[in-house]
Amino acid sequence: MSSSTVPKLFSGYAVEKPENWKEPRLVQYEPFELSPTEITVKIKACGVCGSDCHQVCGNWGPFGRDNLIVGHEIVGEVVEAGSEVTKHKLGDIVAIGAQSDSCGECVRCKDHNEQYCKVAKVETYNTPHPKKNGFVTQGGYASHIRVNANFAVSVPDNLDIYVAAPLLCGGLTVYSPIVRHGGHDLTGKTIGIVGIGGLGSMALQISKALGAKDIYAFSRTSSKKEDALKLGANHFIAAEDVEEWAKSHPDTFDLVLFTGNSNKEADFNPYLEAIKITGTFATISAPKVDEKVIFDPFSLIKNGAVIAGSSLGSLQEAEEVLKLYADNGLKVWIEKLPISEANVKQALIRGVQSDVRYRFVLTDFDKAFNETK
Amino acid sequence: MSSSTVPKLFSGYAVEKPENWKEPRLVQYEPFELSPTEITVKIKACGVCGSDCHQVCGNWGPFGRDNLIVGHEIVGEVVEAGSEVTKHKLGDIVAIGAQSDSCGECVRCKDHNEQYCKVAKVETYNTPHPKKNGFVTQGGYASHIRVNANFAVSVPDNLDIYVAAPLLCGGLTVYSPIVRHGGHDLTGKTIGIVGIGGLGSMALQISKALGAKDIYAFSRTSSKKEDALKLGANHFIAAEDVEEWAKSHPDTFDLVLFTGNSNKEADFNPYLEAIKITGTFATISAPKVDEKVIFDPFSLIKNGAVIAGSSLGSLQEAEEVLKLYADNGLKVWIEKLPISEANVKQALIRGVQSDVRYRFVLTDFDKAFNETK
Repeated sequence: MSSSTVPKLFSGYAVEKPENWKEPRLVQYEPFELSPTEITVKIKACGVCGSDCHQVCGNWGPFGRDNLIVGHEIVGEVVEAGSEVTKHKLGDIVAIGAQSDSCGECVRCKDHNEQYCKVAKVETYNTPHPKKNGFVTQGGYASHIRVNANFAVSVPDNLDIYVAAPLLCGGLTVYSPIVRHGGHDLTGKTIGIVGIGGLGSMALQISKALGAKDIYAFSRTSSKKEDALKLGANHFIAAEDVEEWAKSHPDTFDLVLFTGNSNKEADFNPYLEAIKITGTFATISAPKVDEKVIFDPFSLIKNGAVIAGSSLGSLQEAEEVLKLYADNGLKVWIEKLPISEANVKQALIRGVQSDVRYRFVLTDFDKAFNETK
Repeated sequence: MSSSTVPKLFSGYAVEKPENWKEPRLVQYEPFELSPTEITVKIKACGVCGSDCHQVCGNWGPFGRDNLIVGHEIVGEVVEAGSEVTKHKLGDIVAIGAQSDSCGECVRCKDHNEQYCKVAKVETYNTPHPKKNGFVTQGGYASHIRVNANFAVSVPDNLDIYVAAPLLCGGLTVYSPIVRHGGHDLTGKTIGIVGIGGLGSMALQISKALGAKDIYAFSRTSSKKEDALKLGANHFIAAEDVEEWAKSHPDTFDLVLFTGNSNKEADFNPYLEAIKITGTFATISAPKVDEKVIFDPFSLIKNGAVIAGSSLGSLQEAEEVLKLYADNGLKVWIEKLPISEANVKQALIRGVQSDVRYRFVLTDFDKAFNETK
């Protein structure tokens, strides 16, 4: 199936090279050819993830191509489907996160851990696609995207597309470690969320929706206290007070989730001191490539502590988190920006400064891309 | 109950201060008074643990007293018991590890995690005892020791006392993370043991006894290959080859246990690359106090990896590991040294150099201490 509305060239707001990341500009690019297992999605919304900011700044290394289009919290309409696609049909509203393909054959892929595929994981942008002659993938600040149909998940009818978008990376990235290390039912459990940005805001909502008894928010300053309490926390600790607080609160947490975008300022130790023996400190922090995690081995061993790393989440978990928000009538706290050069620039710059409460979502794609044709 | 054989002063081989750790000498000290819940043990054997070496060298900070007697892999005979002691009786052969008391009331103590008690954990040596006016505890290179009866475990009749001794710290310290993170039944599982010293040698034996399918030994050089294979490993990798090896062996391990006594040389990353998504990298490494753990956060998050710290083990686990060795007719590989100033000196110096295959056990206590009375 294919639709006559699919253009030969896709359009999007690209950053030429890391050094001029503050000047995104509208470009066109030729997508790879549609395979029988792929779909083309006409984009309607795209969240602005911290990863986009890391990537455009060069924090994660150079670009694989000039004029890179980022964005991997994508919602749109299926406008083209390969002959073997059964999961979606034309007109379906689907969401795509930070991953758009994998090998499908390895033990990780077969065991619902395709986000950890080492054989042929394709990130939604900036990955040389192994099945496409190394075509470097382009993301969702764009008119369209073409992906493996399995890596698009259906958006529930009762979920706003602007809520769905940030769930596909940010929401999923916190949901996965919460359910893997805390469980799908948090009844009676105490959860700590460190870092109240976009990820942290969703982690608070998810922890509450899964029934956590006590939810602690840890933030650098007290400026987000009121928000954190509205988002689901019932305790708030400013980071400067953590060390002292932790000393008198051993065995508090079943799970602490660290969502900071840097480990440099992170002192893992106080959290390790406040976790139950059976608890876990999970981190999803993906800092600059040259930054290392450093901590005191005694904090680790003297508390029988467990540190878990987590990246993204599985497709199954993506469906779960969309359903959790839909079923509970939850709304991610977002700020909408109609997509344009000026607003992509604004979103990236303010994103780098963490100046958003709590997630930008780019909107009005129809308007932007119809005008440019 | 008390025995007429208990002297007023206990004798032992002490190190005066860290700066002269190479000159242990025989001293006498006055023990604290026996409480109703305590026993006095006449020592028959004591293993020489890497911790003893760290401690006497000052790697873990200054001594709490002059003339510190180390040693916490103790087997001996109960020669005195407080009026409330029911767990042991005079003449029983018991073993004492690195911990000799705890609060008994906190959530950790009540949940069989007394080794992690933060309230009143007493280490067998060099801890100011909170129930004894801060008496700084003295260890097992000595004629006697007095401890909370609960912290002595019964030695099975069919277990050699010289095998039992090193199991109480070294054996237990590896047994606990193996069973907590790998399970009590390792059938079908693949285990990696990093560092083939005293701890590693016992970890290999334990992994095999618990039924592991594949056991990999990682050692700095190939000099211990033959031993490692005899101890239970069926694969051997020299550390210099690990990085290359790990690249082509993803998803290999259910559990990797790191037993090195320093993190400085440790590159956690290759092991994190070779662990299954559901697996764990456990470390028991207690290095110099100022040494930090440093690793690449991307190795952690991109593999959904779990790093677990572990210290000692519970009393319940101590009983289990003794039973495991007794039931399987296993023998720790030890080198016996009759206790004396010269041999304590030799054991400490060679211990610091890791020049032992694989554990010193001090013997002939009767001879040494009867002669000095």
